[in-house]
Amino acid sequence: MQARENCIFCRIVAGTARSHPVWDDGETLAFMDLNPLAEGHVLVIPKPHWENLFETPAPALGAVMDTAKRMAHAIRATIAPPGLGVYQVNGRAAGQTVFHYHVHLIPRHDGISLELHGRRRADRADLERVAVRLRAALVPPG
Amino acid sequence: MQARENCIFCRIVAGTARSHPVWDDGETLAFMDLNPLAEGHVLVIPKPHWENLFETPAPALGAVMDTAKRMAHAIRATIAPPGLGVYQVNGRAAGQTVFHYHVHLIPRHDGISLELHGRRRADRADLERVAVRLRAALVPPG
Repeated sequence: MQARENCIFCRIVAGTARSHPVWDDGETLAFMDLNPLAEGHVLVIPKPHWENLFETPAPALGAVMDTAKRMAHAIRATIAPPGLGVYQVNGRAAGQTVFHYHVHLIPRHDGISLELHGRRRADRADLERVAVRLRAALVPPG
Repeated sequence: MQARENCIFCRIVAGTARSHPVWDDGETLAFMDLNPLAEGHVLVIPKPHWENLFETPAPALGAVMDTAKRMAHAIRATIAPPGLGVYQVNGRAAGQTVFHYHVHLIPRHDGISLELHGRRRADRADLERVAVRLRAALVPPG
């Protein structure tokens, strides 16, 4: 969780990289995404450097969600989009490009892209097989 | 937060609709998405009925994140995808189809779709204008 000199978000926390902050408290920071997918696209991060969901401790995850909810209310009160997406990705294969845990808040207007439910209904036996494997792999989140 | 007869997730909580559970504790439930976007697509919900991020109280949001992290570890230990997306949408315009707060955990393999950073870099003045409006609209998350 030590700040990384080559991490843009750590530099934003340290004040050595420019950002457009929306919220700053002892644990979290919210600021505008520089490559927004919509007007009002905000990022929320924990101030310490953790790479992803796996590394970030539960109290920090909760603090980020508190701030995300606060941002959601602010977005609703200003942009008032008909929809709001909350997205967090882990690993390059999921689209992560900054390796400091962050949650996206993205106003949604169309209902078309980023649809999250697939069109194909899965075979229940296949689902259950996966569920069994997952249940067997449960460990404390730490 | 009263259970809704016409809410499929409330019926899953009540045991009157079939699901493929992965985790069940006093506050949250995790189960397989019936229309998975990838093998290992899991949903995490708070047991009480709240429609979205705006309605769900902070302690429940934290409990859901604890369970989400637990699920992420289980997915990594089993499916071992190169990426993992955590998605939560609010409103039909954002793709919400079940109006009971839920978080998606979706293994990602390709790094192509669901990309979250836009390609267009925003004008900083435009960003700052939005940031100012958001800062002015901040309210306690409740």
